[in-house]
Amino acid sequence: MIAVDWGTTSFRAYRLDSQGGIVEKREAPKGILSVEADGFSQVLESEIGDWIAAADAPIVMSGMVGSRQGWTEAPYVECPAGLEELAASLKEVEWGRRRAWIVPGVSCRDEAGVRDVMRGEEVQILGALAAVEENRFLVCLPGTHSKWVLVEDSKIAAFSTHMTGEVFAVLKSHSLLGRTMQEATAGDADAFADGVKRSGDTGGLLHHIFGVRTRGLFGELAPAATSSYLSGILIGHELRSAAVSKVYFLGNPQLTDLYVRAATSLSIETRTLDPNSATPALFKLAQVKKIRG
Amino acid sequence: MIAVDWGTTSFRAYRLDSQGGIVEKREAPKGILSVEADGFSQVLESEIGDWIAAADAPIVMSGMVGSRQGWTEAPYVECPAGLEELAASLKEVEWGRRRAWIVPGVSCRDEAGVRDVMRGEEVQILGALAAVEENRFLVCLPGTHSKWVLVEDSKIAAFSTHMTGEVFAVLKSHSLLGRTMQEATAGDADAFADGVKRSGDTGGLLHHIFGVRTRGLFGELAPAATSSYLSGILIGHELRSAAVSKVYFLGNPQLTDLYVRAATSLSIETRTLDPNSATPALFKLAQVKKIRG
Repeated sequence: MIAVDWGTTSFRAYRLDSQGGIVEKREAPKGILSVEADGFSQVLESEIGDWIAAADAPIVMSGMVGSRQGWTEAPYVECPAGLEELAASLKEVEWGRRRAWIVPGVSCRDEAGVRDVMRGEEVQILGALAAVEENRFLVCLPGTHSKWVLVEDSKIAAFSTHMTGEVFAVLKSHSLLGRTMQEATAGDADAFADGVKRSGDTGGLLHHIFGVRTRGLFGELAPAATSSYLSGILIGHELRSAAVSKVYFLGNPQLTDLYVRAATSLSIETRTLDPNSATPALFKLAQVKKIRG
Repeated sequence: MIAVDWGTTSFRAYRLDSQGGIVEKREAPKGILSVEADGFSQVLESEIGDWIAAADAPIVMSGMVGSRQGWTEAPYVECPAGLEELAASLKEVEWGRRRAWIVPGVSCRDEAGVRDVMRGEEVQILGALAAVEENRFLVCLPGTHSKWVLVEDSKIAAFSTHMTGEVFAVLKSHSLLGRTMQEATAGDADAFADGVKRSGDTGGLLHHIFGVRTRGLFGELAPAATSSYLSGILIGHELRSAAVSKVYFLGNPQLTDLYVRAATSLSIETRTLDPNSATPALFKLAQVKKIRG
């Protein structure tokens, strides 16, 4: 089968063997934001047309390709959502005599009734389940929009999103705080730890981030360290809001390392999961759905 | 005397009579960001040269004109800081045979030792003291960088800054949350109140703001209401962090109205002060310093 992870900024395709092993991988900067509304099938044909033609294999795609801005909207499935629920709501798209299936996103409401959504992360989480022995556990996928996901009985039971990465990026690029920042080649571990510690002081996030400015003004924080200090404050706030004792991290190694350091300093027990977990889930989805190409 | 409030984006000058009453006011979009490093005296001469020539009056200036990016740096005075302390640290600038005095900023450290600073707000606060009978009270100046100021014995005893206005602006202009916002001609009072209420739920600020996106996605929040909802979340977080039972607001009436509504819904007792309070303080500073022009 062919598994496709098609997000906002990138397109990744995997050709899998009959056991789900990766035979070949292709990647292109053709995220959905760069594709015209009627141009999705053309991208698929131009990127992996030879795969499609060679074997009449089922194609399963996840990520923002199933959003309102993508190929077609694959509506959100309500929690609790496991592979069965996702497979039951795969959305079919056709072009010429070909067809493919798009994985739906997942949605839930929190105690206050406010909606939350994910799209793409659900296959990473469900693909990583095999590595965890517990029946009930928490997974964090750090990123632009970090996801904190409660998994129970092999299903996504509930989750919440924190805009940590995006807030960091906009403050760095567009606020007063970014003006005096110098890009460090590597992060400053001490400044990051200081920021995590700071997030526990009284005053709240909107106050703590102003310290990036004032500590810089008084020479108490080097320009090359301000970015790490801000990152520590924000990640610290995210972790404290989560208020958990143990968490599995699933994400790119560099970012996961920051989260593990911050969590450890807050006495949160951590484990890390292999972030390349989308293809096992997409493979299983094709099996559950018993798709024939 | 002549009082000048010279900030980042605007220049405001007041000609005062011998009782401190405003005789004439001039305003120009010549904030310090638009002035060359050696061009400050020229702006003063071009805007109010006739006032300066007509009466050999003392000139006292407050605001970012005394910052590192301004005419000259007037170093921060440590809390507790009242009119006496500010007057003792007025910084003199000269051009030709003329001179003027720049009011210093104020600085403090919080319990954790982290610095905070203000520049310009100190004269507004000290100028508004006469309207308050209490000896110890809290003033909030809402804005891009909101200031929460503890006044004791007619001095600024301590304060903390919240970047509420700037975070609102960058999220609106540069984040995913702004993409679906429609500018409402008037704010949406219900959505604002919802946001203030939301700020008290579990999950923290970085989670709450994502609700702006999800509630919009599911049609539970109109595009014209999202901006007010976000504003309510942020102001709600600021007020909850302040954790006070009574506060005096000092700021532009529209913004103060939002803060009063939010505070009232959180059972915080509020009073509002006249925001045009810089000139009384600048007048008194000139008296304390016994400046002769």
